[in-house]
Amino acid sequence: MIAKTPKPPYYAVIFTNIRTEIEELYAETAEEMLRLAADQEGYLGHESVRDGLGITISYWASEKSILNWKQQTDHLLAQRMGREKWYKAYKTRVCMVERDYGFSK
Amino acid sequence: MIAKTPKPPYYAVIFTNIRTEIEELYAETAEEMLRLAADQEGYLGHESVRDGLGITISYWASEKSILNWKQQTDHLLAQRMGREKWYKAYKTRVCMVERDYGFSK
Repeated sequence: MIAKTPKPPYYAVIFTNIRTEIEELYAETAEEMLRLAADQEGYLGHESVRDGLGITISYWASEKSILNWKQQTDHLLAQRMGREKWYKAYKTRVCMVERDYGFSK
Repeated sequence: MIAKTPKPPYYAVIFTNIRTEIEELYAETAEEMLRLAADQEGYLGHESVRDGLGITISYWASEKSILNWKQQTDHLLAQRMGREKWYKAYKTRVCMVERDYGFSK
């Protein structure tokens, strides 16, 4: 569940969001978008949690791979549906991961 | 609940974690750490969600403010307790936020 990412530098896209109450096509589209993202060149993994607030972080090899995914046709449609139906508010932050460290028992 | 951050560049620390079943002192320490972090110079806000996987992102004005917080005495003790008791696994990623955009109804 913690994404296995390579040695930095790499990129992270933090998508923090608050949902509306509209469920129409949401779950299936979210699942399809994660499947499509995983097929994109440069995709490294993702982490996603919701409990009222939703946070989904996707990890990418380069800025180019992030821009390609942002412009992918099905993803553009999902982004539009997101603004029209599924999200009350969201913020997307594009970041360069400079260093990381971890721990596992 | 979505952090109100300034115009980029700024920094994000992504802390992704999986808990043990040990509850001892966890909730009160987590709350105290958020309170202490908010008092640190350079703190800009945070977002936190748990649903099995936990993701807490704190936002900072500079790398210096992140290093100061990492070395803060009470926080060092909490980090040690985290490794010994509360977390099965975690990953911390220090990132520079290069650009962001959002939407709100």
